[in-house]
Amino acid sequence: MKNNRSRFITLVLILALAFSNPNKIYAEDGYDLWLRYKKIENRDLLKSYQTVLKNVVIRSETSTFNAAKKELKTALPNLLDSEISFSDLNENGGNLIVALRSDSKFISENVNESELKNLGNEGYLIKSLKSNNIVITGNTEVGILYGVFRFLQQIQQEKDISKLEISDFPKTKIRILNHWDNLDRTVERGYAGFSLWDWFRLPDVVDPRYKDYARANASIGINGSVITNVNANALILTPLYLEKIAKLADVFRPYGIKVYLTARFSAPIELDKLPTADPLDPQVQLWWKNKAEEIYKYIPDFGGFLVKANSEGQPGPQNYNRNHAEGANLLADAVAPFGGIVMWRAFVYDQNVPDDRAKQAYTEFKPLDGKFRDNVIVQVKNGAIDFQPREPFHPLFGAMEKSNIMMEFQITQEYLGFSTHLVFLAPLFEECLKADTYAKGEGSTVASSIDGSMHGQKLTGMAGVANIGTDRNWTGHPFAQANWYAFGRLAWDPYLKSAEIADEWIRMTFSNDEKFVQPVLGMMLISRENCVNYMTPLGLHHIMGRSHHHGPGPWVTGGRPDWTAVYYHRADSIGVGFNRTQTGSNATGQYFKPVADKFNNIETCPEEFLLWFHHVPWNYKMKSGNILWDEICYHYNGGVTAVREMQKSWNSLEKSVDSERFNYVQSLLKIQEKEAVWWRNSCILYFQTFSKLPIPEYIEKSDKTLEEYMKIRELYMPGI
Amino acid sequence: MKNNRSRFITLVLILALAFSNPNKIYAEDGYDLWLRYKKIENRDLLKSYQTVLKNVVIRSETSTFNAAKKELKTALPNLLDSEISFSDLNENGGNLIVALRSDSKFISENVNESELKNLGNEGYLIKSLKSNNIVITGNTEVGILYGVFRFLQQIQQEKDISKLEISDFPKTKIRILNHWDNLDRTVERGYAGFSLWDWFRLPDVVDPRYKDYARANASIGINGSVITNVNANALILTPLYLEKIAKLADVFRPYGIKVYLTARFSAPIELDKLPTADPLDPQVQLWWKNKAEEIYKYIPDFGGFLVKANSEGQPGPQNYNRNHAEGANLLADAVAPFGGIVMWRAFVYDQNVPDDRAKQAYTEFKPLDGKFRDNVIVQVKNGAIDFQPREPFHPLFGAMEKSNIMMEFQITQEYLGFSTHLVFLAPLFEECLKADTYAKGEGSTVASSIDGSMHGQKLTGMAGVANIGTDRNWTGHPFAQANWYAFGRLAWDPYLKSAEIADEWIRMTFSNDEKFVQPVLGMMLISRENCVNYMTPLGLHHIMGRSHHHGPGPWVTGGRPDWTAVYYHRADSIGVGFNRTQTGSNATGQYFKPVADKFNNIETCPEEFLLWFHHVPWNYKMKSGNILWDEICYHYNGGVTAVREMQKSWNSLEKSVDSERFNYVQSLLKIQEKEAVWWRNSCILYFQTFSKLPIPEYIEKSDKTLEEYMKIRELYMPGI
Repeated sequence: MKNNRSRFITLVLILALAFSNPNKIYAEDGYDLWLRYKKIENRDLLKSYQTVLKNVVIRSETSTFNAAKKELKTALPNLLDSEISFSDLNENGGNLIVALRSDSKFISENVNESELKNLGNEGYLIKSLKSNNIVITGNTEVGILYGVFRFLQQIQQEKDISKLEISDFPKTKIRILNHWDNLDRTVERGYAGFSLWDWFRLPDVVDPRYKDYARANASIGINGSVITNVNANALILTPLYLEKIAKLADVFRPYGIKVYLTARFSAPIELDKLPTADPLDPQVQLWWKNKAEEIYKYIPDFGGFLVKANSEGQPGPQNYNRNHAEGANLLADAVAPFGGIVMWRAFVYDQNVPDDRAKQAYTEFKPLDGKFRDNVIVQVKNGAIDFQPREPFHPLFGAMEKSNIMMEFQITQEYLGFSTHLVFLAPLFEECLKADTYAKGEGSTVASSIDGSMHGQKLTGMAGVANIGTDRNWTGHPFAQANWYAFGRLAWDPYLKSAEIADEWIRMTFSNDEKFVQPVLGMMLISRENCVNYMTPLGLHHIMGRSHHHGPGPWVTGGRPDWTAVYYHRADSIGVGFNRTQTGSNATGQYFKPVADKFNNIETCPEEFLLWFHHVPWNYKMKSGNILWDEICYHYNGGVTAVREMQKSWNSLEKSVDSERFNYVQSLLKIQEKEAVWWRNSCILYFQTFSKLPIPEYIEKSDKTLEEYMKIRELYMPGI
Repeated sequence: MKNNRSRFITLVLILALAFSNPNKIYAEDGYDLWLRYKKIENRDLLKSYQTVLKNVVIRSETSTFNAAKKELKTALPNLLDSEISFSDLNENGGNLIVALRSDSKFISENVNESELKNLGNEGYLIKSLKSNNIVITGNTEVGILYGVFRFLQQIQQEKDISKLEISDFPKTKIRILNHWDNLDRTVERGYAGFSLWDWFRLPDVVDPRYKDYARANASIGINGSVITNVNANALILTPLYLEKIAKLADVFRPYGIKVYLTARFSAPIELDKLPTADPLDPQVQLWWKNKAEEIYKYIPDFGGFLVKANSEGQPGPQNYNRNHAEGANLLADAVAPFGGIVMWRAFVYDQNVPDDRAKQAYTEFKPLDGKFRDNVIVQVKNGAIDFQPREPFHPLFGAMEKSNIMMEFQITQEYLGFSTHLVFLAPLFEECLKADTYAKGEGSTVASSIDGSMHGQKLTGMAGVANIGTDRNWTGHPFAQANWYAFGRLAWDPYLKSAEIADEWIRMTFSNDEKFVQPVLGMMLISRENCVNYMTPLGLHHIMGRSHHHGPGPWVTGGRPDWTAVYYHRADSIGVGFNRTQTGSNATGQYFKPVADKFNNIETCPEEFLLWFHHVPWNYKMKSGNILWDEICYHYNGGVTAVREMQKSWNSLEKSVDSERFNYVQSLLKIQEKEAVWWRNSCILYFQTFSKLPIPEYIEKSDKTLEEYMKIRELYMPGI
C-alpha cells in the first residue's frame, strides 16, 4: 500500500513538473538587444555551467557594484535555468568572485598584483581557478563591471568557462556615441523613431529605458554619450535643461558613462546677449568659464563639449577671424579645471572656397597641428567627404602629429539605406582602421593613429553617430543593432576583425546554432559590399536623393555645387569620376607619398576607389577585361542579385529564429530588394545618357524610364 | 530500501517542482494595457476556474475566429496557469464553446434563436450551461469576438462564471477613435510619443504593434479608427498612401475595425489641379466619385470620411458660398454606393462673426437640420467651446431632430494636464451624457440623442480624440489608459457609470486586491473634479497657456480674441465670468426652455457653471456663504490639496503594485502637484489684480510673483 502511494505521489509530482511550465511564448521584439539571457540550449554545456556556477560573491554598496550584481541576477538564473545564490564564499567552490583585489581576501591570495598592472582604470581580468572558482577583478569598479559583461558574454556565446584567462583593457580613452537629437525629439538622420530623451517629463520622470540604454553601452565598453545634435541648440546649456541632463547623468554614472553636450559657439550671444562670441574676447572667456562652473555644479563628472563650428551654417571662431584652435581652446580652458575635454569636429567645407571639398578639412586643420590644448581632441570623419558607402581614409589621419585626433564613424545609415537595408558596417569601419597612412613608414595604420601609438598622443577616442531611437528594437532594423555593437567593440579595440564581431553578436542576439550562425555570418559580412555595389560602386559617391539622402539621385544638380551629385561623378561623354590626382584637384597630394603614388597612378589605384580619384573613360579596360561602362553595370546588377540571395538565405532560416524577428527582417529585405533595383535602374539609365553604350543583355529591363525615376518626389522622409 | 528510494525520489521531485520556476520578474511596462492575463491570485477562485474550463471548442478558418482563438490561447493558460485543450467537444463537460449557432450543434440545441434576436450584428450571448459548459455566441463573428473579450474580462475581474448569462449589444453604431496624426508622425495634441503609423516602412513592414492596437480596441468594442489628422493632408488620398493604409485595414479587419480617413476639402485642387472644389460643380462631384471608387479598390470596407471644414483655416464649402450640408453631401454621395459614411464636424467658429464663440456652431448647423444625406452624421464636441475641464453640454444635442448626430469626446488631455496629470475622464463623459436637454421634455438626455432613441436617427455614434502614441504604455500616463478604456465602454453603452468602468479597469490593469482597488477607485473618481478645481473652477474656462495649451495663462491677451483667455473670463473690477444669459450673449437661448431658464437665473444656475454663464461680482454670496472671490481661492487650493492626497494615497499602495508602474506614477504625481500649485498661484495672483481682495490666510504663500509666472516661456512642448 505504502509503495503504491509513494509511487502515486511520485507520478503526480512528475506530471506536475512536466506541466508546471505551460508553454509561454516570449515575443522577441528586439528590445533586449544582445543582452538576451535565454536558457542555454546545449544540454551538456548547460549542465557543465550549472556545475561550475553556483554562487556569486559580490558586494553592492556602490552603485556600480549594484549594477553589476543586478546584471548577474538577471542573467545567470535565466541563462543557466537554475537558482544561483548571492552570498559569501562557499568553501566547496563553484563561486564567481567579483571584487577589487583590495576588497577580497580570496582574490588577493589568488591573483598577483602584477596581473592587474596593465589593466589601467577600465580593464579587467577574468580567471578560472581551482575548485570551479572564477574571479572577475580589475583596478576600478567600472573595469570590473565591464568584466562582468564580458564574462556573461562567454556564456551567451556558449564558450568553455573552465579555463578562462581573459585580460583586457580598452585601447582608446573616449568611446562615445553622438546622438544627433533635437529638442523637439526629432533625430537628424535618425531612422529608428524619435529621440530617447523625454525632455518634457524630465527631470521628474526617469524613463526606465535610460537604464537599459546604459546597460547596453556598458556591455560593449562605451563610456560616453553626446546627447544633443551637433547642429546645436544653446538652450541645453541653461538650467532648465541642465537639471534634466543631470538626471540622465545620474542614470549613466554607475555604468561608467559620462554625459557630454554639443556647444553652440554663439551661446554667449543667444543666451546672455553678449555683443560677441569672439574666443579672444575676455568677456566671452569669462562667460564660458562661468558656464562651465555652472554645468559642473549640476553634473560633477560632465565629460565636456562636442563642437561643430563654421560648418554648414553653424557659428564658430571664423565669424571673428579666429581659427579653429582658438575656438577650441576657448572652450577647453573653460572645462579644463574640471577635467573636461573638447571634441572639435574637422568636418568643414565651404562652397565659396574654390577647392575640392575633399581637401578642405586637411587644408584648414593641418596648419593648426600642435596648436590645440591638451584637452582638445580633433574629431575627424573616416573619409574626406561624408560617410559614403565607401571612401578612402581621411588624409588627416597620420598627418596630425602633435594634436589629439579621434575617429568619427557613422552608425546610422544616412547613406546606406536608412534602417531598412541590412548593411553590416564593421567591414567599413575595419577597412578604414587598417588602412595604411604611411605616416611613419609602412604599418602606420589609421588604427595606430586612433589608439595613440603612432604619434604618442595621450587623449584618444572614437565617436559613433548613433542609430538609436524610440523604436522598440532601438535601431529600426534588427540587424542595425549589430552596427551599434560593432562600433563599441572597435572603439574598445580598433584591431578587431569584422568576422569575430559578427560572430559574437549573432550568437548573443539570435542563436548559437551553427546552422543559423554560418549563413547569417556570411550574409552580414558581404552586406556592405553589396550596398556599395547597388549604390556607389567603383569609387562613385554622393549620388543620392537631395536633402533626405534617400534613394538614387545621380541627376541632382542646381543650387550649391558641393550638395549636388554631378559635382562628384562629373559624368560626361568621355567618362565618369572625379580627377583628384595631381593632374586634377590633387587631393591625393594630401596623403603621404606611397599612398599618393598609389592613388595617382590609374594602374595602381585600387578599383574600389577608381572613380573617387580618376575621371575614367567609359571604354577604359578594367582588370576584369570589361570596359568601365560594363563594369559599372556589372556591379550595380551584382548588388541586386546579392540582395536576392540574402532573401533566399534568410527565408531558409525561418525555423531557426523567432517568428516576430523572422517576419520583420523578411519584410525589410523586400524593401531592400526593391530599392536596390531602384538604385541600379536609375543609375544605369542615367549614366547611359553619357556613355551612350548599351546596357548588358543579362540585366533585367527596367520597369520605369529615367524620366519616371527622376520625377519621384519623396515626402515626409524620416531623419530630416 | 525501496521506500527510502521512493521517498527520496519524491523529495527530489518536490524540490524540483519548487525550484522549477526560478523567480522571473516580469517588468510591467504597461504595454499590455487591460489585457494583462496574469495568473489569478485568489487560490480558491483559480481552482474553480480550472475545474470549469478545460477545453475550448472553436473553429479558426476565418480571420476573426482565428483572432478569437489566439486571444483565448494567450489568455486562458496564463490566467488559469494550466493547460487548456483546444479541441472537439468533451462529453464530460468543462467546455467553452465559441461559435455561430448555425455552426454548432451544441449551441443550436441549447440556445434558442430568440435569445439572439436582439443582439444585432455586433452583440453576443455568454451563457453557462450544465456540466460546466459555457457558450459564447452571436449573430456574427465579430459579435462573438466581442463576447470572447467580455468573457475573458469576467475572469480577469475574478467574477463568478458558474452562472453566466450575459446578453449585450452596442447602443451606438460608430464607435470610433480619431487620431490627430500627421504624416511626419507628430501627433497634434498628442502627449504619448509619436504616431503609431510608420508610413515610411509601410506597406512592406507591418509593425506587430498594429495588431495589439486592434486587439485593445476590439476588447472594448471600438469598431473604427480615423487614422489621420482633422487638419488634413490631401496626400493620404493618393495611391502612395492608400497602399499603406490598405495594409493597416488588413490588420484591423479581423477585429471588426474599419479604417476611415480625414478628407481635405480642397483635395481636387491640390491633387489634380481642378480650378475649384465647389461641391455643386459637376467636375468636383465626378472627382470625388472617382476618388471614392479608387479608395474602395484598395480598401473594400473603407469606412468613410471625417471632415473638418471652414474651421481654424481648413478649406470647406463656404469658400464657394455653399453650406455645410452641401459640402457633406458631396462626399456622402461619393461614398454612399460603397456603404461609406461622412462624419462632418460642427466645430466651427470665426473671429469675424460678431457673436459669442459658444453660439456659432448651433447658429450655423441648426438651420441645416434635415438637409444632410442619410449617410452623413454631424460630429459635435461635448461642449460649445473646446474640451475644457468642464463645459455645459453642447446645445446642438437634442436640437438636431432630423439629422444624424454623434458625440466627439477628447480622450487626450489637451486641456487636462497632457499625459502628466492623473485625470480620469469618465466622470466628464458621464456628466455630459446624462445631462438633460429637455428636447422632448424631461429625460431627454444627451445619451438618448447619441443612441438614437430621442429622435429615432438610424446612424449613431461616438468619437474619441485618441491619446495613443508610440510610448511603450501607449498613453504616456499609465492611468490615461483608463480614459481610452472608458471611452470605448461608453461608446458601447452611454449609460454606464464611471465607477463601474473604473472598477473593471483597475482590476484588469492592476489588481483585484480590494486594498488596492478601493483607494484607487476613489482616487480616480475624484480626479476630474480635482483638475477642474486647480485649473478652472466654477465655470471658468480657456485660461491656459497660448498655443501649446500647457500651464496657466489667464493673462493671455492680444491677437485673435477668441484665442485669448481674457475673452472668456472677462475679469474686471466688478467681477469675473462671461454673461451668456439673455442679458448677455444669450447663448442660453440656444437651449430648450427649462435648461435656458435654469442657466439664465443666477440663483438656479449650478455653481459649477456659474462663470460660464454669468459675470459675477467678486463679493457675490455663494451657497457656501463664501463670497465668490474666496470661493474661487478655496477651489484652487482644494485642487492642490487633493493632488497631495492622491500622492499620499498612491504612496501607501507601494506594496500592491509592481515597482515599475509604482515609481512611474509616483514621479508623474510629483509633476502634477507642482503644476497644480503653479495653476493655483498664477490664477489667484492674476485674478487678485482685479478683485483687489486678500488671498485667504490658509493658502500657502506663492514662491513666485505674478510677474515671474507671466514670464515663463515653455519651448518644445509636445503635441504641437
